[in-house]
Amino acid sequence: MFSSMVIATSAAQPAAPVQRFAIAIHGGAGTITRQNMTPEKEAAYRAALEQALRAGHTVLENGGTSMDACVAAVRVMEDSPLFNAGKGAVYTAEETHELDAAVMDGATLKAGAVAAVKRVKNPVELARLVMDKSQHVMLAGDGAETFAREQGMELVENSYFDTPQRLEQLRKAKDKQRAPATAPALSPQDRHGTVGCVALDRHGNLAAATSTGGMTNKRFGRVGDSPIVGAGTWADNETCAVSATGHGEYLMRLVIGHEVSSQMRWGKRSLREAADDTIARLGKLGGDGGIIAIDRRGNIAMPFNSEGMYRGSIDADGKMNVEIYK
Amino acid sequence: MFSSMVIATSAAQPAAPVQRFAIAIHGGAGTITRQNMTPEKEAAYRAALEQALRAGHTVLENGGTSMDACVAAVRVMEDSPLFNAGKGAVYTAEETHELDAAVMDGATLKAGAVAAVKRVKNPVELARLVMDKSQHVMLAGDGAETFAREQGMELVENSYFDTPQRLEQLRKAKDKQRAPATAPALSPQDRHGTVGCVALDRHGNLAAATSTGGMTNKRFGRVGDSPIVGAGTWADNETCAVSATGHGEYLMRLVIGHEVSSQMRWGKRSLREAADDTIARLGKLGGDGGIIAIDRRGNIAMPFNSEGMYRGSIDADGKMNVEIYK
Repeated sequence: MFSSMVIATSAAQPAAPVQRFAIAIHGGAGTITRQNMTPEKEAAYRAALEQALRAGHTVLENGGTSMDACVAAVRVMEDSPLFNAGKGAVYTAEETHELDAAVMDGATLKAGAVAAVKRVKNPVELARLVMDKSQHVMLAGDGAETFAREQGMELVENSYFDTPQRLEQLRKAKDKQRAPATAPALSPQDRHGTVGCVALDRHGNLAAATSTGGMTNKRFGRVGDSPIVGAGTWADNETCAVSATGHGEYLMRLVIGHEVSSQMRWGKRSLREAADDTIARLGKLGGDGGIIAIDRRGNIAMPFNSEGMYRGSIDADGKMNVEIYK
Repeated sequence: MFSSMVIATSAAQPAAPVQRFAIAIHGGAGTITRQNMTPEKEAAYRAALEQALRAGHTVLENGGTSMDACVAAVRVMEDSPLFNAGKGAVYTAEETHELDAAVMDGATLKAGAVAAVKRVKNPVELARLVMDKSQHVMLAGDGAETFAREQGMELVENSYFDTPQRLEQLRKAKDKQRAPATAPALSPQDRHGTVGCVALDRHGNLAAATSTGGMTNKRFGRVGDSPIVGAGTWADNETCAVSATGHGEYLMRLVIGHEVSSQMRWGKRSLREAADDTIARLGKLGGDGGIIAIDRRGNIAMPFNSEGMYRGSIDADGKMNVEIYK
């Protein structure tokens, strides 16, 4: 099972070298329970997660790079109104949308990130351009959009990201702020949410990508963990690729992606041991959330300490797995 | 020498517990050579570094916290026109100034950071407020200034940061951009620059603080390593406190502060071994820069791979050391 050279049974077009490849995604962690879910809603989430997985997996199957696969999978989730990223991004306190994203290439440790962009339809693609076409790692705000325009990227109006369900979430959040004792509780799932992907390609390279609309009702130009290299997004061929979701402030203080990687590199731990220990540390610090992680052998770990996490994988044997609850 | 309980010989006011305390600072790394330096300029830098060290050390001597000491030391360097932080911040391509800063508390892993602020005289103090008075870790741009105002912080005009020498640097950078073959080379020291402090207090707590004006001629809302928790700034009582300076993109891709910490925690390395190995990794990746680091015993390491780094320390024996060249 852990051999690094097996025939990929699901390969439509055999590519050389024939090596293990696999992919995992998440669509956010939080208070996601069966009680809060309708059969229709659950089916919609499962379908969207499967669509994202297949988009990424097809790239890998055809011999494409893990970076291309991650961007393809994240793009599907950005374009869905179900997830807090791209089209489904939450609202800021000012009833606008500010989006963050990052990508990292495990072969080169190159990375690209954007923070607080307002007019970029697919922030993950801009993060990719920052990595490929700029000398920088992180661009923020209007400046990032100037770069997007110079790169020929088409911008959208901020209202593209408007959705009735997210507006209702914002209103609830503001009501709760005004009347903390009586208003209905706003669950972490209403506040947070992220999408992400990690992948191992046939060339043995790891990559990670993460995208988010941030926190509902956010103010002050708050930046969370998603666009922070080492926190929400990390990839290093020598260890693992990680994408995180949850209460960003805690994920940043733990440098959660790089922590998993460091436990593997310096602590000689397996991916699972490192991932589980890191989530235990998150809990001890008082934070909730989860990670998806993959190593160079295609092992996948998806631990979380919240009530649920939208997640899925297609492992090195071609087996698809999509889950929502604990 | 490595005992954790010695009488601090320089203590003016003995405080309980009488424990080792120490401080280290940097004022940026880069192409700093004796040939480029006049005796007057060198004396001015040495005096400013000593003043910053004493400001922080006095706090520690009086039983204050390592966080207070770091903010006090960084504030002195922010107020000096000599360093690329606060008053001496470099210019963006638009002839404005955008400043970044971060602080981290090793006892709690709490952290605060601000990116791309334009009207905050002492960004390190705003980073401290983000840590102490907000639910967030990182605030960027106008939003961070809204938070500053709500906290009663007085804002300055962006022109407060104008200095003739930095304007000349910008002009040189733009000339070089236009005529790369003939214009005088712009050294890394002209492009980068940062100030930072790490400290161990009498209570056994570590802290770190970093502040910068970023890169000369920067565009696109570029954010470097300084405000990134784990990269430019890191503190954890169980391992070390780190502040970095140099080519920020490389420091971010290595998550350099957290890397030193991880080598100590998981690799069981000493501060010096971890710091030296991390700078070697920086060089291998193609980046230049340096770090200051301190552990819970008061050991200090200040490795760099550039030609010079403005740096200084007052160790646990009360001995002051200020250096510029390799």
